[in-house]
Amino acid sequence: MKILVLNSGSSSVKYQLWDTPDKGVLAKGLVSRIGIDDPLHQHKVNDREIEFAPDEPINHEKAIQLLLDALVSPKHGVIARIDEIDAVGHRVVHGGEKFSDSALITPEVIEAIKECIPLAPLHNPPNLMGIIACEKVLDVPQVAIFDTAFHQTMEPYAYIYALPYEFYDEYKIRRYGFHGTSHYYVAHQAAKMLGKRIEELKIITAHLGNGASITAVKNGKCIDTSMGLTPLEGLVMGTRCGDIDPAIVLFIMEQKNIDIKATNNLLNKKSGLLGISGATNDLRDVLKASANGVYRAKLALDVYCYRIRKYIGAYTAAMGGVDVLVFTAGIGENASPIRKKAVEGLEFAGLILDDDKNNRTVGIPGDISAKDASARILVIPTNEELVIATETERIVNENLN
Amino acid sequence: MKILVLNSGSSSVKYQLWDTPDKGVLAKGLVSRIGIDDPLHQHKVNDREIEFAPDEPINHEKAIQLLLDALVSPKHGVIARIDEIDAVGHRVVHGGEKFSDSALITPEVIEAIKECIPLAPLHNPPNLMGIIACEKVLDVPQVAIFDTAFHQTMEPYAYIYALPYEFYDEYKIRRYGFHGTSHYYVAHQAAKMLGKRIEELKIITAHLGNGASITAVKNGKCIDTSMGLTPLEGLVMGTRCGDIDPAIVLFIMEQKNIDIKATNNLLNKKSGLLGISGATNDLRDVLKASANGVYRAKLALDVYCYRIRKYIGAYTAAMGGVDVLVFTAGIGENASPIRKKAVEGLEFAGLILDDDKNNRTVGIPGDISAKDASARILVIPTNEELVIATETERIVNENLN
Repeated sequence: MKILVLNSGSSSVKYQLWDTPDKGVLAKGLVSRIGIDDPLHQHKVNDREIEFAPDEPINHEKAIQLLLDALVSPKHGVIARIDEIDAVGHRVVHGGEKFSDSALITPEVIEAIKECIPLAPLHNPPNLMGIIACEKVLDVPQVAIFDTAFHQTMEPYAYIYALPYEFYDEYKIRRYGFHGTSHYYVAHQAAKMLGKRIEELKIITAHLGNGASITAVKNGKCIDTSMGLTPLEGLVMGTRCGDIDPAIVLFIMEQKNIDIKATNNLLNKKSGLLGISGATNDLRDVLKASANGVYRAKLALDVYCYRIRKYIGAYTAAMGGVDVLVFTAGIGENASPIRKKAVEGLEFAGLILDDDKNNRTVGIPGDISAKDASARILVIPTNEELVIATETERIVNENLN
Repeated sequence: MKILVLNSGSSSVKYQLWDTPDKGVLAKGLVSRIGIDDPLHQHKVNDREIEFAPDEPINHEKAIQLLLDALVSPKHGVIARIDEIDAVGHRVVHGGEKFSDSALITPEVIEAIKECIPLAPLHNPPNLMGIIACEKVLDVPQVAIFDTAFHQTMEPYAYIYALPYEFYDEYKIRRYGFHGTSHYYVAHQAAKMLGKRIEELKIITAHLGNGASITAVKNGKCIDTSMGLTPLEGLVMGTRCGDIDPAIVLFIMEQKNIDIKATNNLLNKKSGLLGISGATNDLRDVLKASANGVYRAKLALDVYCYRIRKYIGAYTAAMGGVDVLVFTAGIGENASPIRKKAVEGLEFAGLILDDDKNNRTVGIPGDISAKDASARILVIPTNEELVIATETERIVNENLN
């Protein structure tokens, strides 16, 4: 089945054309600077990348028309006609409590995604724009794959905050969690790599990218995750603070005399590795600076890794032990010094690193744990687009055949 | 040495007269409703309690005069003359980064406590009122014992938040931790009970009262603690939310259209057990309601205990293992069902409860762990006043003899 995988952000649309189940990615690309000046379209077939620069500002509908044109272009295309595309799979950030599974897009589903906008005001609107634009230009089934769906198996005691309970009833304030597609994928891959059934494993998955979250997966189900109502909670990230004393939010507003919007911006865009280091949100640069003896860079790394280590401990406690720890996403797949520092002192839980294997495993899958350790530490490159493609195929088959 | 121990709050002064090192508490009491109508003075000698109701509103100075009068009263007193009191020990909530030890009160120390007022606007001012009132009516050495001092051994990676670093430089935003006197006391008592040197133990101390915090004490030093810049962070408490997604603070302000003060009040006074249960902040009542099948009471307990369990896991990871877990304060000393639920599934860390011992150990010290478990679980009644008295004696001896 030929499936177009779309990730529509506020000013960009990322795409991959998949041929499931076996042929993989036929083409991929990115249309960026949507709605602003100088839009750009980068299209990649095999290892050849072509750039187009549209003359005038474009909207989401036009962006999707551009990427479809490229897919059927005689010169750069990979299909002959648009109607070879069998379905579209959309990444949707927030599915609230309505979606514990992917969903065939219907008017009711669009309504439900709209209802989640207050919970994800920056993400759900552009996700919807992508869906609506596709409906105009393509007459094929569309499927929504939610970042929050995998986490919907959490028990109330793991997702309810100790706030007045009416806030849950009225405003749906609770822990949702994000990166669900990635956590789902690497947890299942981990079971495969070990030749075990996921239903008998206690897995901790650490998705460490510019955003970062960590999830406890017990017997195949998410029982807890570090991101909360929004993607701000939990681990230290590139520019997000993660966990802080909630009173600090108010303290800062008062001391700096700034409003809600500015405070949100500060905690989401000026904090994390960038905030502590004062220099960069790119972990590679923080690692370099730290190696050069820059105090605040080293401090940023220490805080970053210590937070991960504490979450590993917390989730080991939550599951009553751990069988597998998985590192994934840009930092998790590549930054061996971070992995080493994050698992220091976790021997008591059976997590022991093999330094050589750790140093050798960069951007590739591998078991980096010591041979005789009682738990495994794995590196598994994530593939959210693959999950979106296979989920789309599954939902289409279940609903339409 | 006869030491007056004072805990001056905004509308009350708690006191104990100690005869150190051996004779213990001679008398104690509480002057309440200071600065408002119908002040009340409760004074206790042995097991006899006397109540006085002053005719008109009183200030802190008058409150201290009243308690001194009671201490020397021919009828209810325990000393013949005021000058038998050798020193006064004051609980001071926030010592910032200036105080990693108790301090003899001097004009400079008073200045430093004043400088910490922005960090503890509700607590340091009445603490200071108590000190200044005592200076007027008593001519003896006074000592400040800080709630934050024991936690000053934390490393920067444990106390720095992932916020712009300037906030630490300019506003001193960092983790401080509270209940330090209690964590210090029970950690040392735990080592004594086990006949071991504290320098060779990894101890987790859970202070569960109406306020609640948990501390990792490695080799005698605090390395991490759950309360942060303020006593709001960390565990679920009677009326405080503890950890939440920091974005929730802003989300609530926006949805409910409330200001900083109202939000602070909501998170500190309307949340926690009270918020989830919707009925009470008294754990005993929540336990009863839960036993009667009330859903939100059971949920409140589940969230409360799950949070403790995750912190035990996190601090076990932070220390690379755990030798001793200590429960203390009202809930920790008495609520055996909470202790049981909080340590469920922690066998992997060596923490295994003996149900019988747990049920029998209510309000008394005891080892409640299974005989052959590799780590100990202890119940130790806290005694902050004893620490204040002995610290006062030590500081007076060090400085004045």
